[in-house]
Amino acid sequence: MNITQFVEHSLGRWRSQRSAHHLIFSHFEAVQSVIDIVPLSPDDEEVINLCNSYDIAPSLAVSPFGMSWEGESDWDDNAQVKGSCILVPVPDPIIPNRGKLLRDQGYAETIAAAGDYHITEDGTFVLLTSYDRAAAEEKIWFANPNLRFRVSLIKTSEGSGVVTASFSSEIRSLSDNKIDT
Amino acid sequence: MNITQFVEHSLGRWRSQRSAHHLIFSHFEAVQSVIDIVPLSPDDEEVINLCNSYDIAPSLAVSPFGMSWEGESDWDDNAQVKGSCILVPVPDPIIPNRGKLLRDQGYAETIAAAGDYHITEDGTFVLLTSYDRAAAEEKIWFANPNLRFRVSLIKTSEGSGVVTASFSSEIRSLSDNKIDT
Repeated sequence: MNITQFVEHSLGRWRSQRSAHHLIFSHFEAVQSVIDIVPLSPDDEEVINLCNSYDIAPSLAVSPFGMSWEGESDWDDNAQVKGSCILVPVPDPIIPNRGKLLRDQGYAETIAAAGDYHITEDGTFVLLTSYDRAAAEEKIWFANPNLRFRVSLIKTSEGSGVVTASFSSEIRSLSDNKIDT
Repeated sequence: MNITQFVEHSLGRWRSQRSAHHLIFSHFEAVQSVIDIVPLSPDDEEVINLCNSYDIAPSLAVSPFGMSWEGESDWDDNAQVKGSCILVPVPDPIIPNRGKLLRDQGYAETIAAAGDYHITEDGTFVLLTSYDRAAAEEKIWFANPNLRFRVSLIKTSEGSGVVTASFSSEIRSLSDNKIDT
């Protein structure tokens, strides 16, 4: 699995069931959402701007894509969860299946972020992102073409303490219907 | 990481937070439990009997251990979750970091089961077990010595359809106290 294949497999609409474990308080959070992943053109102005903001030549970008999500959490009176971002993989020119992933908005903080990705032998996409006061580690893999899993860890910036661990089961939505809630 | 190291890292008492996603109904289940993992002697009668029941020479067993768990699920009026089993790794004599894991009681069915394990390059323990009417896939890895994660999939026996996906965050318990609930 290379990054182009990984992005291709990810395109489409997904119904997501996410459980977050807030480890210090042993708290469980449940989130249901719909995630849309759409391809972007390498010529897209937002893609070019994002590359430029990291001093990376836009010609090095591969398979840029947009992601949006909308759902509900049981954390805070069924708070709405909603957002979108664009993501631009920039493969390492030398080492295969490794590179940077530029993002115009991170998960853990609402600022742009560049993470380091690699794809393991067994097809797991691993992304490590450092923020000012936190670090995030994400693993995404496919059980089959219509089912993918995602484990996300939010760590302290020192990297060893895990504050939140979350797990998503994402099922490809074969209709255009929004999730039943 | 080899199987001996993996078992050594796993010994002790763990507070576990588990979320199960029942995918067909988009149902969330939350389980809190305490898990105890203790080493067993290769000379233990139960270990020898389990090897014999699979026609495996007990001398091939490495790092046998016992596991017990006790907790509560929110699935069915906070039903009690309780059980124990013994597990006996039998490394492949030729291929490194690969082998059988014998178990006197499975997760998906209450019968003995022998699964196939391997340990990936990045230290993830992967276990595949086939039952009469189901198959289970389990991935276990350590974020640090005191925190391990476990993803378990219950599949149809054909192997492609995932019925339940669950995720556990397991924190090493540094006291002998039972989990606060």
